Amino acid sequence: MTAYEKIAGELVSLIDKQVLRVGDRLPSVRRATRNHHVSPGTVLRAYRDLEARGLIESRPRSGYYVRRMELPRMRASVSTSPPPDATPVVVGDVIVELVTAMRRPHLISLGLDILNPELLPGENLNRAAARAARQLKPAGIIRSLTPGDPELRRLIALRYLDSGVGSAEDEIVIVNGGFEAVVLCLRALTKPGDTIAIETPNAWPQIGELIGMGLRVREIPTDPRDGMDLSALEDAFRTRSVKACLVMPTFQNPLGFRMSDENKHSLAELAARYEIPVIENDRVSELYFNDVRPRPVKAFDRSGHVLHCGSFATWLSPAYKIGWIAAGKYLKEVVRTKIQLSLYTSPLCQAAMVQFLAQGHVERYLRLLRQRLAARCEVMVEAISADFPAGCRMNHPAGGFVLWVELPKDVDSLKLYRLALAKGVSIAPGPMFSARLHYGNCMRLNFGYASVRDIRNGIRTIAQLIGRPSSRLVPVMGQSAIDRLTDYII
Amino acid sequence: MTAYEKIAGELVSLIDKQVLRVGDRLPSVRRATRNHHVSPGTVLRAYRDLEARGLIESRPRSGYYVRRMELPRMRASVSTSPPPDATPVVVGDVIVELVTAMRRPHLISLGLDILNPELLPGENLNRAAARAARQLKPAGIIRSLTPGDPELRRLIALRYLDSGVGSAEDEIVIVNGGFEAVVLCLRALTKPGDTIAIETPNAWPQIGELIGMGLRVREIPTDPRDGMDLSALEDAFRTRSVKACLVMPTFQNPLGFRMSDENKHSLAELAARYEIPVIENDRVSELYFNDVRPRPVKAFDRSGHVLHCGSFATWLSPAYKIGWIAAGKYLKEVVRTKIQLSLYTSPLCQAAMVQFLAQGHVERYLRLLRQRLAARCEVMVEAISADFPAGCRMNHPAGGFVLWVELPKDVDSLKLYRLALAKGVSIAPGPMFSARLHYGNCMRLNFGYASVRDIRNGIRTIAQLIGRPSSRLVPVMGQSAIDRLTDYII
Repeated sequence: MTAYEKIAGELVSLIDKQVLRVGDRLPSVRRATRNHHVSPGTVLRAYRDLEARGLIESRPRSGYYVRRMELPRMRASVSTSPPPDATPVVVGDVIVELVTAMRRPHLISLGLDILNPELLPGENLNRAAARAARQLKPAGIIRSLTPGDPELRRLIALRYLDSGVGSAEDEIVIVNGGFEAVVLCLRALTKPGDTIAIETPNAWPQIGELIGMGLRVREIPTDPRDGMDLSALEDAFRTRSVKACLVMPTFQNPLGFRMSDENKHSLAELAARYEIPVIENDRVSELYFNDVRPRPVKAFDRSGHVLHCGSFATWLSPAYKIGWIAAGKYLKEVVRTKIQLSLYTSPLCQAAMVQFLAQGHVERYLRLLRQRLAARCEVMVEAISADFPAGCRMNHPAGGFVLWVELPKDVDSLKLYRLALAKGVSIAPGPMFSARLHYGNCMRLNFGYASVRDIRNGIRTIAQLIGRPSSRLVPVMGQSAIDRLTDYII
Repeated sequence: MTAYEKIAGELVSLIDKQVLRVGDRLPSVRRATRNHHVSPGTVLRAYRDLEARGLIESRPRSGYYVRRMELPRMRASVSTSPPPDATPVVVGDVIVELVTAMRRPHLISLGLDILNPELLPGENLNRAAARAARQLKPAGIIRSLTPGDPELRRLIALRYLDSGVGSAEDEIVIVNGGFEAVVLCLRALTKPGDTIAIETPNAWPQIGELIGMGLRVREIPTDPRDGMDLSALEDAFRTRSVKACLVMPTFQNPLGFRMSDENKHSLAELAARYEIPVIENDRVSELYFNDVRPRPVKAFDRSGHVLHCGSFATWLSPAYKIGWIAAGKYLKEVVRTKIQLSLYTSPLCQAAMVQFLAQGHVERYLRLLRQRLAARCEVMVEAISADFPAGCRMNHPAGGFVLWVELPKDVDSLKLYRLALAKGVSIAPGPMFSARLHYGNCMRLNFGYASVRDIRNGIRTIAQLIGRPSSRLVPVMGQSAIDRLTDYII
């Protein structure tokens, strides 16, 4: 262990034991330098590592402080098989309702995990798309067939260089958004009856159901601060009980954590050692709130076992729906699967993205978006801290646009979801994020859609509902929840 | 049976028995009126029906003539289960090669079933897309979420009125192209292990493999002039051995036939009587070569059991990749499946399509496209007639852009495919169109991509290869083909 890792580890331990509490100031760099007999650079590196992981924050001219971030290790079932027929439909209905509710005029949308298009660079994007549309030629359409427009692939490869990936454009396949990216990887790498390792909670616990019947998931215990338990994952790799691992190491959905670089490195090494592919769902890593640009697992991948999935649809514009896969050694399988499943990706959308990226507005837009999201995150965290009853806990993400709240044990988040929707506020109830409908007293909230005022009002509405007896039931756990679920869902 | 159906039936029988042969002139309307003791309108209706089905053609100031169209009933296995692991991969590789080959500079592409973008209304489309892009607003993005942009759904509903479908816009769901339309319907209506009825040959014999593992197909005998054998289908419906039926009744891919209105009517009634959904893949019905606009099965559907799948991507522009489903009574299931599988369809592409449809250029463009395709079809038919050896047969479609050729029994179309590709000409070999790799001496040719000159040169090249001993092998039939297949495919 290097000196800076040791210092960072000690601080994590102090935070864990509540010796250092939320709002406490860390020792100054000068004092820590003296205490640990190291250089100031080593201390700074440790502090920046903790900052990147969202554990502490720097305040200008003041120092480093412990951020709100108090969640125990998530409960996780060790292994699950596909739930019975009724389950995906029920959880699916919540998603359908969340999408449908978006059309309601005064909805405060904290449930669906999309960014508000008002935050996106509408004017510049529209101009780029218009130029692309005017210039679209038949030859360009043919050139955009799978694996995709060569210029778009080159521009994506250039962006990779910034995050430490030397990926050649040759391994990039353009796809129809971030979800198709993950689905294609799974379809290319697995067969009926195979098991994949996933984090829990997870935005797509039913992924096996979604991509085709019969794929099983093994939920790996997941730390809300550092992600998947790699020793548990290694057990699964060693026993060959999983065919692939699907992870979201940077600003995971729904927990919002950022896995440390050390663990990302270890994950890439595990993939290489056991020759098991790791599908890295990396849709929001551009949305980091501090100066430290997160590196993907792919940056540590020397053997080609990591398939890196990115998406412009998530953080640039849903209007385009362009995603990609850097497929590593699995390129041939991914190309074949893409052609079989959807032949090619909209050439118009590809051309529009080329125009926008080539204009070079992306970085300026991203800086602005990161500031706005960081500010909204603080607004939501403050509002929850002020309004929610004792016994609630939340994480405090250092990027992305969702956070995770644990409510008192006797609150049923599915009941709360229904009551809140009736009051004009949508949330994403915890059981959506578990193959076995765990997390009955948890919810995911999106701070990237509603306005600052709506976030405050929405949190107040939810807080009032949590206080009511009607929100309280025996926590939803396991299969027994299914019958009750159907009471709440149309 | 009405009078005109009786006259039409007699003529079909005469053509079948070769009493009336290719190029023969039918009795004049006046004479037929006298012979049958009916009104001229009745005779005309019978002739127009046969014309719409591609059996006869009218020549200006001359009369009606029998067209080239000589194919026996297609061989079909009565029931198939998913082929072993190797099969979909092998057939899939042909598709991958066909797509990849499109980038070769001087390829004569007769294999992949896409229209040449040069035939599409590039300028007008580009202007519409540019206008849509400039005007795209955040609210418009949210409005385009599933089930899709309301204005686009209304414009599609208006187009339905022209083809005799009173479908309300409320049952229309916008999707990401024609293939997603079919996949969504199947995912919404079937479960693992279910069996669906399909035509044989069929462009997607592996559809069960593609949409998720474990879906079985039952290939229903299919007449190259009138489509699926409805009594065989009814047997399957009666015994409840299929959960849904997937058909392409208008200019079927690969055979090119157009099912008669009577049979379409019967098919809709079968669906209603047995309460089994019929998924109507209707991507190219706009591309009819004579004045008779084909009606879809959906036009005869009173009970809501027909799901009608359309696509602008096929005949208007692949750059947009917009398709739709008129989902009938299955609307709720289709919406849910769409949201689960791909959340929504590109709002930019939806907005571009609204702009183009609203401009009203579509009909003018379609008239031109139909004329061009009809002319290219004739060029290809003439070239095949002139160059191919005795013992070949083909259909002569009355719409769409593919035709089907049966080669002498000792020609192996997979071998031919590989040899032709080496000579710069792509074809689609027959085994691609069968779950059991039948049709080893058949191929599908696209007359909607290559130029007229390339069509003539391509056909000549293929004809020369057919004459060579190296193209000749024992016909590929059944599973035994798999081993040999791998010799030809990378």
